[in-house]
Amino acid sequence: MILIQGAKILLGEKIVEGNITIEGNEIASIGEKKDKSDVVIDARGLAAIPGLFNCHTHAAMTMFRGYAEDMPLQEWLEKKIWPAEMRLNEKIVYLASKLACVEMLKSGTTFFLDMYFFPSATARAVEETGIRACLSSAFFDFFSEEILETSMKRVEKELKELENFRVMRAIAPHAVYTVSMEGLRRSAEMAGREDVFIHFHLAETEKEVVEFRKKYGKDIVKALDEIGFLSSRLFCAHSVWLEREEIELLARRKVNAIHCPTSNMKLSVGKAMNYPEMRKAGVNVLLGTDGAASNNSLSIFNEMKFCALLQKFSYGAESFKAVEAFKMATENAGKAFGIKAGRIEEGWLADIVLVDLNQIQFSPCHDLIANLVYSNATVDTVIVDGKIVVEGGYFDGEEKLLEEFSKEVEKFFM
Amino acid sequence: MILIQGAKILLGEKIVEGNITIEGNEIASIGEKKDKSDVVIDARGLAAIPGLFNCHTHAAMTMFRGYAEDMPLQEWLEKKIWPAEMRLNEKIVYLASKLACVEMLKSGTTFFLDMYFFPSATARAVEETGIRACLSSAFFDFFSEEILETSMKRVEKELKELENFRVMRAIAPHAVYTVSMEGLRRSAEMAGREDVFIHFHLAETEKEVVEFRKKYGKDIVKALDEIGFLSSRLFCAHSVWLEREEIELLARRKVNAIHCPTSNMKLSVGKAMNYPEMRKAGVNVLLGTDGAASNNSLSIFNEMKFCALLQKFSYGAESFKAVEAFKMATENAGKAFGIKAGRIEEGWLADIVLVDLNQIQFSPCHDLIANLVYSNATVDTVIVDGKIVVEGGYFDGEEKLLEEFSKEVEKFFM
Repeated sequence: MILIQGAKILLGEKIVEGNITIEGNEIASIGEKKDKSDVVIDARGLAAIPGLFNCHTHAAMTMFRGYAEDMPLQEWLEKKIWPAEMRLNEKIVYLASKLACVEMLKSGTTFFLDMYFFPSATARAVEETGIRACLSSAFFDFFSEEILETSMKRVEKELKELENFRVMRAIAPHAVYTVSMEGLRRSAEMAGREDVFIHFHLAETEKEVVEFRKKYGKDIVKALDEIGFLSSRLFCAHSVWLEREEIELLARRKVNAIHCPTSNMKLSVGKAMNYPEMRKAGVNVLLGTDGAASNNSLSIFNEMKFCALLQKFSYGAESFKAVEAFKMATENAGKAFGIKAGRIEEGWLADIVLVDLNQIQFSPCHDLIANLVYSNATVDTVIVDGKIVVEGGYFDGEEKLLEEFSKEVEKFFM
Repeated sequence: MILIQGAKILLGEKIVEGNITIEGNEIASIGEKKDKSDVVIDARGLAAIPGLFNCHTHAAMTMFRGYAEDMPLQEWLEKKIWPAEMRLNEKIVYLASKLACVEMLKSGTTFFLDMYFFPSATARAVEETGIRACLSSAFFDFFSEEILETSMKRVEKELKELENFRVMRAIAPHAVYTVSMEGLRRSAEMAGREDVFIHFHLAETEKEVVEFRKKYGKDIVKALDEIGFLSSRLFCAHSVWLEREEIELLARRKVNAIHCPTSNMKLSVGKAMNYPEMRKAGVNVLLGTDGAASNNSLSIFNEMKFCALLQKFSYGAESFKAVEAFKMATENAGKAFGIKAGRIEEGWLADIVLVDLNQIQFSPCHDLIANLVYSNATVDTVIVDGKIVVEGGYFDGEEKLLEEFSKEVEKFFM
């Protein structure tokens, strides 16, 4: 049992001062109650907020942080990233993912949705660090039936392997420009059969959308609907270049859209997700950092700021409120994954972050949510699934991990 | 004497491992040299970089951080900020400025250019915290001769008072929509006579530019040139809505332009500073956070990221390199103020920041400058004018300051 004592607790948008008790992996009570806890956290001067969700990343790409900057996308992929990725192995994916897990935990993220190679190596990192995750088995078929068959077999095998870990699972057909419609149809079919999520890149660039229309004679979302790809299982990263009708269709099919503002700015995708239209249509919108190669951080605190500011910049200063970014990073995501997380409530999962209110850059605190979104929050404690994983801003074993990771990275890029 | 031992030293864009010795307020040597220093800093695992410059802020506005979010500009000013500013006093300006100074120091900023009321209260905060600053005496005349006369007298008095402090000085006519052309002309005249800088808001919004053209029948920069306002003394915050000819004129007159990307995004000014054009013309471009009410942070590390990403988003992924943001925040600014700061060089001012390289979110370090710009640098030590002011990320006395500030803020907003 854990007792969090004297925190400023964020309940929805309200702040209540009091105690939280945790039993097992759940929030047992919120209020005045104290009990004979094994662990007492003195949380005076700390705010208790729900753990944050990073709903689109490629965790292991921490190894490429700053590896190839300011290059044209094609050259970047062809000369730097792809040749390096050809040489990937389980060990480097495991260590780079573990580094990512710790980076996320230390910045208040308690759940991430990932897409990368060797998902069970990432699953091992997830279990060892205590973070929560949904991991994808990713594939491209490059419009070849043969590659599709091989890929589907690998995906099936990888999904099976992931069953051995404490993770949620997804199948990740990469995007419409790398996967055939048949590949997408079969992904949706398999997702239904295996009861897993679908993780997908949608309408990131104008080129993708224009070329799809040229090739298939219709808009992407319309075409995806025709093959039964759209459902509440689906998580669409980026979702930038969409028409109003497509956004409305996403809403009707209860598809989740993931805003990745930092990555979209860095890779200069040309415009911002049309969040005002998404909101009007009722699409469930989430936040993602994308990989460390195109960000180059995995902090959802950063991402909330970029989100609010990119939206204001694109659609007007009054078009977006800080609390909307906060909801994208918390309760919207919990809802999308069908878990009781993203809010602090009795009976919900004990995924809680304690943020230090006595920090210069966080003072004054006229508006806690505005400070959380804009003012470089300092994470003190992180609890996931009822276990304390970050204490005093520190993850136990981080030096050793850094050392192992650095050695392996050096070897890899030698 | 201070010896910084075993750092990774950023010399321009090159990294050299070695020692730095500091004598008085200057860098005495860079390289292998060790001496019998009074203070030895073990800098293994740290990068030594030049201190950062924040070239446009309103330091005391930390008191308004998160005070009035997501409101339309006019309502925000008229209902919230202006009524509060009517009640300002020296004590709150002093404490709010001091908080800002500590926030800046802790995030690696060693110099700021400020514009606010009661500049000598801010000067006191500057001296007590050890940061370097150029403080402005600000005024509006609202196109009234009478207000202009009163203002000029106050400005003269305030500039005189500032002579008693270890600060550089500027006169700050607010902007063309609040100050008459005669007020601007006299500002330039006084700046020449007193040998001080000019700090000014230029072309922040389209409205400002369109209305000026309507009123005066010409572009702002052209009109400013005709009254002798343009020179290397001049620091123009924002500089967003400018024509190519105006940018070229700024370059010819050696005017400094200050990019404030975060503020511009938050207040939705409609487009990004045209940096590619500025670069082509040869304008000296700097970075500023603007005040904490429209950011809501004073970290120039954040600002470099917003700068690089807003530029890439607006003008293409290859249009801007991380190192350009770093130069805006360092050597461009040192040059603008005519001081030997913004680079680590022998004989230059000892304004040095030590950044922790052994941080999860900073690893790997394929590219130090990319990490500094994008990956949430952790500031360990800050040295200004040869004095250690931040150690282990901590500013001596910060708790006491927070307490005093909080009490005063509570009283003020009661």
